[in-house]
Amino acid sequence: MAAAGEPEVIRDKAAMRAWSRRRRAEGKTVVLVPTMGFLHEGHLSLVSTAANASAGAPVAVVVSIYVNPSQFAPTEDLATYPSDLAGDLRKLASTGAVHAVFNPPDLYVRGTDGSGGAAVSGSCLQEAAGGHETWIRVERLEVGLCGSSRPVFFRGVATVVSKLFNVVEPDVAVFGKKDYQQWRLICRMVRDLDFAIEIIGSEIVREADGLAMSSRNVHLSREEREKALSISKSLVNARTSALKNSNSASQHMKNQIAQTLSEAGGRVDYVEIVEQESLVPVDTIDRPVVICVAAWFGKVRLIDNIEIHPGS
Amino acid sequence: MAAAGEPEVIRDKAAMRAWSRRRRAEGKTVVLVPTMGFLHEGHLSLVSTAANASAGAPVAVVVSIYVNPSQFAPTEDLATYPSDLAGDLRKLASTGAVHAVFNPPDLYVRGTDGSGGAAVSGSCLQEAAGGHETWIRVERLEVGLCGSSRPVFFRGVATVVSKLFNVVEPDVAVFGKKDYQQWRLICRMVRDLDFAIEIIGSEIVREADGLAMSSRNVHLSREEREKALSISKSLVNARTSALKNSNSASQHMKNQIAQTLSEAGGRVDYVEIVEQESLVPVDTIDRPVVICVAAWFGKVRLIDNIEIHPGS
Repeated sequence: MAAAGEPEVIRDKAAMRAWSRRRRAEGKTVVLVPTMGFLHEGHLSLVSTAANASAGAPVAVVVSIYVNPSQFAPTEDLATYPSDLAGDLRKLASTGAVHAVFNPPDLYVRGTDGSGGAAVSGSCLQEAAGGHETWIRVERLEVGLCGSSRPVFFRGVATVVSKLFNVVEPDVAVFGKKDYQQWRLICRMVRDLDFAIEIIGSEIVREADGLAMSSRNVHLSREEREKALSISKSLVNARTSALKNSNSASQHMKNQIAQTLSEAGGRVDYVEIVEQESLVPVDTIDRPVVICVAAWFGKVRLIDNIEIHPGS
Repeated sequence: MAAAGEPEVIRDKAAMRAWSRRRRAEGKTVVLVPTMGFLHEGHLSLVSTAANASAGAPVAVVVSIYVNPSQFAPTEDLATYPSDLAGDLRKLASTGAVHAVFNPPDLYVRGTDGSGGAAVSGSCLQEAAGGHETWIRVERLEVGLCGSSRPVFFRGVATVVSKLFNVVEPDVAVFGKKDYQQWRLICRMVRDLDFAIEIIGSEIVREADGLAMSSRNVHLSREEREKALSISKSLVNARTSALKNSNSASQHMKNQIAQTLSEAGGRVDYVEIVEQESLVPVDTIDRPVVICVAAWFGKVRLIDNIEIHPGS
């Protein structure tokens, strides 16, 4: 791929759309990598996937950096979500593969009065009369897993991603498979709403010791970080066991993982074994599944997952 | 405007999108007129608005014809909704202003099993596992007026319109102001989700005697049709009165309209006087409002409305 040099930073929606349309008119494939910033190697791996997303044709890679308030509940960590725009821009420039960074100050229309109108959001986006009120729901995939403990999360994600799609108008968008449910939900939304966008799921990037990379890892103490290794270890062990023993029972495996996490000092949010596309729980591991885990270590909620293709 | 001749009939989503992109690459403004077919003079007026939607620049006008099952409740009239594709195509050709007709056999992904999955739709779209599950809600504007008696209607409308937007990728879309709440809701959805589409609201077209044109009028008996004239008459009288007497009380006016409709033999669904953009009810007519009415005459539910700009 051609070196992209210093990416152009765009803050205005109309300017972003005009930029994309110019690139497309030049015959380029516009590829979007949506992020919330505080970038790590996992994000840079998404950028690398984006740079190679189009066989042969030149690409124009856009990384968006926007911490979306509507996917956080008021009880969650919006206020402490880490950020470092200058560092992010340096890292993106160093890849030589990013052509534009979309960093809008705000993506939502705010209302003119604080009374809240008819709808109560439940998210960190204040919904005043006249303000934002349109939400996208992916009704089956948003239920369960992270949807159980984060009831407004996927509504916020689906809505902000469709806004980014309509502003950036990409041909391709890249999502990390660490946020497995999010990736599947976006694929489903794209299918159901007929977005002309190809979605690429990019593999999880891990630290040398196995911890899945996450912007939230920075909030882990050294001791918590050590304990959190139990997540990836238990997932790898579970996969090894499932590949050795055909038709393993899900319940037994889920119990084992949960026990390992608890013994390490984690507080389990969920351990589920589900079909890869529908995210429907399975009783027996006799088809392609994914084990999804969410657990708290200290004040940090971590998620991770591992795909299993039995018989492969 | 240049004569468009016989419109091209397109049934496939990908072909439709490719058609639009070619027209846009030629420098044309793509204008969409979404309809459910059984076209009348009201629709042709939307086409005329579409043909003149772009000052100076050439337009490519697409009329979509698709009866959207997801906006009908199972108790409603999907099965008897009138259709006449051949007649529609003749009428559109006769305007000389329509370049393409998008008439898809189906717009939704259907599931592979009838069990229904986790979500129950409440609409005429059967939601089987693996099938369509993504819905757009405009949470304040979908409440009240037609939303009260048709709880799945606006969810279905917002969703199918966004699908049409993503398939046709228009620069402009034209909606009739007879469906006043629908028009305002689409404007809000476009704003909130950042669709790059200008929405034009086109004025109500009436029969010579004042009845607002509707595909459903065909189901009115001669007697019912006569009685239904009470709708437009009572709306015109209300506006005359409001313009004559400043700060009229809404309640008194709503009572009068409801009484007139009932005396004529109609069954009132609602009479409301609301702000034009927010659709919030007003007590006093001291700012721009719209009076919205829905009433049954026989087995036909009719809607109509009239805008009032006091002091103008």
